[in-house]
Amino acid sequence: MGQMKNLAYYNGKITAIEDMMIPANDRGFYFGDGIYEVAMVFHHKIFALEDHLERMFNSATMLQIQLPYTKEEIGALLNDLILKVESPCQFLYWQVTRGTSPRNHLFPEGVSSNLYVYSKPWKGVEISDEYRLISVVDTRFYHCNIKTLNLIPNIMAAQKAKEAGCQEAVFVRDGYVTEGSHSNISMIKDNVFITHPLDRLILPGTERKHMIRYCGEMGVGVEERAFTLEELAEADEIIISSTSHPIMRAMELDGKAVGRKNPQVISMLREKYMKEIGA
Amino acid sequence: MGQMKNLAYYNGKITAIEDMMIPANDRGFYFGDGIYEVAMVFHHKIFALEDHLERMFNSATMLQIQLPYTKEEIGALLNDLILKVESPCQFLYWQVTRGTSPRNHLFPEGVSSNLYVYSKPWKGVEISDEYRLISVVDTRFYHCNIKTLNLIPNIMAAQKAKEAGCQEAVFVRDGYVTEGSHSNISMIKDNVFITHPLDRLILPGTERKHMIRYCGEMGVGVEERAFTLEELAEADEIIISSTSHPIMRAMELDGKAVGRKNPQVISMLREKYMKEIGA
Repeated sequence: MGQMKNLAYYNGKITAIEDMMIPANDRGFYFGDGIYEVAMVFHHKIFALEDHLERMFNSATMLQIQLPYTKEEIGALLNDLILKVESPCQFLYWQVTRGTSPRNHLFPEGVSSNLYVYSKPWKGVEISDEYRLISVVDTRFYHCNIKTLNLIPNIMAAQKAKEAGCQEAVFVRDGYVTEGSHSNISMIKDNVFITHPLDRLILPGTERKHMIRYCGEMGVGVEERAFTLEELAEADEIIISSTSHPIMRAMELDGKAVGRKNPQVISMLREKYMKEIGA
Repeated sequence: MGQMKNLAYYNGKITAIEDMMIPANDRGFYFGDGIYEVAMVFHHKIFALEDHLERMFNSATMLQIQLPYTKEEIGALLNDLILKVESPCQFLYWQVTRGTSPRNHLFPEGVSSNLYVYSKPWKGVEISDEYRLISVVDTRFYHCNIKTLNLIPNIMAAQKAKEAGCQEAVFVRDGYVTEGSHSNISMIKDNVFITHPLDRLILPGTERKHMIRYCGEMGVGVEERAFTLEELAEADEIIISSTSHPIMRAMELDGKAVGRKNPQVISMLREKYMKEIGA
């Protein structure tokens, strides 16, 4: 167990990530025509694997990408691959593209989808109470519920945040907060956890789902509704959540101090998370 | 001149298209983080190369992708590459991605963009007066003026058109026609050429630009304005235009007969085009 520093897998071939080569005719390269997932590996075990497999299959179905394996089979493969990497704590990424074929918008026929996986050592859970956020106009497409490889607006927003000295960008569409460039954005107001409803404007984040469950277990109310940027600025807490950065707190939004007025709920959420991952 | 059936080029390396391999860490593969162009080659000469280079550089600027060469340098490279392909008539494609680097939303530092080119034999100009069109809701992002690799809604629409027995899908946003899944959509009504204005909702098509110029030369009026799907259905002619399929006419839209009531203007446009390409 654990012979490699990091690992990439493509349709059965295994190399180090930086050595992996793929055909230029992979439709991921021409059209971003694929879907992906990220999961954390703790103690050589994939956290919340079932959530990620379920979302992966949903994403593929929505894009009509055929997966020539079951959830169990892909899960078994991923479990096998992470054991080849030395570090017990890993960042595991996998993506499926519609296949390899001469460039053509139309779906290729008689071609299997391509499975690419990589896993690399990860630093473990890093908590921050000091996220700075910048709001940006949400100009993305209306398929944000699908975890696709069409991520240009996300990378442009993430880069804009970084250049403004921030850790995340908050997308705002028609006055309402949707999500972050690579996270969900939620808030706590008057001891209620408020987060954008699941529609075509946001990704159904696995951490978002877990936090809703944690709130239920703690007796904290949950509202799944859209909220404005002004409401977010007035929230008791702003929570930025993703698989790799689970329950971050914001201290600043567009240059103004925000949140950090309900540390009790935050602590309880984080305790539940840490317990689940076995930390 | 012309030793290869087809050709792919990636950062200096040359192979047949189907043999070209690229690093999985190319950001095109993770994020569709790049731009592209398509040009036609007739008589071993690239048609409208300057238009494509101008748009390419505009696209790169809008995405803040650095191009480590001038328009003249990339033009010279493309002109050189097409001479290595046997066929005098070619479909020439090139794309630039933001570089090769471990996956991270943020722009990589100290990394050059990647240039990928391919060229393959093309059948030459194929005119059709019998395009069938299907309208689809335009759910794309608000960056359609940039020729990016984020093309999932386009391929889904193209596939939907094909499955409906159609040759192109017409995107409709808020009641107004924007463009096709891989073409611009224009119409002729009362001897006036009407086409969507250049904004973030459509690609500034090179053929669209040429047709506007042809109309000027022919004394045909031009209106650059949005029009509804109903107006399109009532047009005298519906023109579908792209680099590879320059001036196609529609005969059907959503199952109903349309257009084909002003063959004179169509003939004049096509004559101008054929003359320019030296056919």
